[in-house]
Amino acid sequence: MTLGKLILIPSWLHEENSAAQFPLDALNQVYALRLFIAERAKTARRFLKAIDYPHPLSEVQMMELNKHQEDDVHRLLAPCLNGQEVGLISEAGVPAVADPGGIIVDTAHRMGIQVVPLIGPSSLLLALMASGMNGQRFTFHGYLSRSEHDLQKELRAMEQDSRQLNTTHFFIETPYRNDKLMATMLRSLAPTTELSAAVNLTSPSQWIRKMTVLEWKKSGVQIGKQPAVFLLFAGKIPS
Amino acid sequence: MTLGKLILIPSWLHEENSAAQFPLDALNQVYALRLFIAERAKTARRFLKAIDYPHPLSEVQMMELNKHQEDDVHRLLAPCLNGQEVGLISEAGVPAVADPGGIIVDTAHRMGIQVVPLIGPSSLLLALMASGMNGQRFTFHGYLSRSEHDLQKELRAMEQDSRQLNTTHFFIETPYRNDKLMATMLRSLAPTTELSAAVNLTSPSQWIRKMTVLEWKKSGVQIGKQPAVFLLFAGKIPS
Repeated sequence: MTLGKLILIPSWLHEENSAAQFPLDALNQVYALRLFIAERAKTARRFLKAIDYPHPLSEVQMMELNKHQEDDVHRLLAPCLNGQEVGLISEAGVPAVADPGGIIVDTAHRMGIQVVPLIGPSSLLLALMASGMNGQRFTFHGYLSRSEHDLQKELRAMEQDSRQLNTTHFFIETPYRNDKLMATMLRSLAPTTELSAAVNLTSPSQWIRKMTVLEWKKSGVQIGKQPAVFLLFAGKIPS
Repeated sequence: MTLGKLILIPSWLHEENSAAQFPLDALNQVYALRLFIAERAKTARRFLKAIDYPHPLSEVQMMELNKHQEDDVHRLLAPCLNGQEVGLISEAGVPAVADPGGIIVDTAHRMGIQVVPLIGPSSLLLALMASGMNGQRFTFHGYLSRSEHDLQKELRAMEQDSRQLNTTHFFIETPYRNDKLMATMLRSLAPTTELSAAVNLTSPSQWIRKMTVLEWKKSGVQIGKQPAVFLLFAGKIPS
């Protein structure tokens, strides 16, 4: 028997005009599914509705990924062993990237289940494209340290690495801590080091800026409590 | 006067069924443009045709990005200063990520031009999503060393870093060297280290596998001369 595939479904970054944020090919692959794994069933159902999912939601089986025990993951993927296809829906952006879905994808590979990633919005990729920094070498760090002392050490290590190897470093923060992070960056990094912030991506209020630390200081710009991706670069873009 | 924006346009990874690989919102933003920067005008025109660009291609101005002198980049972006919007089209995947467009985006920021990244296919992001490795911390290296000795050193440094910090490391190779790279990896890395290969992404012959070095050796699978992204992981996926 052929095993069912695991389809990785990106989700909206912002709820406006949702279906238009996803390629037709990806939408059609989602429309063909009846079985989903999601962090929160409620958000996932709202997402399906917003992208014009054509079947009654009462026919949809939504499995919640609230524990990460390996046993549980095997159970979630069991339908694939019977030839059924299962969709993994992210809460925002693409599954398994800055998102807890990784363990599901890992287990699918171990079970011999084919994994099919769909094209869709990713704040990390959009921020990197638009950063004006090096896209040939980059490191994503997830969340940085909460302690001011460790955070400064981390930022300076990134700056040093970026100078030596031309690496773009990027990371995220809980929105209410954005301005604190930004203040620490402006205090800890060299005036010529470049910082980029990509804020509210894909929403009508999206804004993306890249400036040196010195220019950020002069501008007085505040990010505010918005979803943001931060990027740091102290190298030279290779041609 | 308001400056025109720089719109970052992802391009196809494979030519089949092209328009269906792009969100309607992205297509509409491309359809509104008349001025483009591209590596090769010919491929870019073929791409526009394939995504059902609604205007005669004779009305399109296609500027080629064949040199990377800063003067040249300023000239390419000059229309934005007159309020015109300019599209930057990649040869494959998203502009400025594993792609020479970075210098254009950098210059746009310096000129105060707004940068707008569109959603579309990226082999790096698709490979990372589907890898079953850590998507909370990752480093992209572009192309690795050609010298066998340096390559082995690089691979072992990645393996060591991955063990310590749970980083997923990923990189690309010129297709005709894929099997040589794979052979070096299988020779140089620990049997338990995981390798993922994402081959021919978005094409009908797409395949994605993740196995340990030992399993790859036993399987005897060859990648062949196909576009591929390689990923290496020796850590533990955080839950």
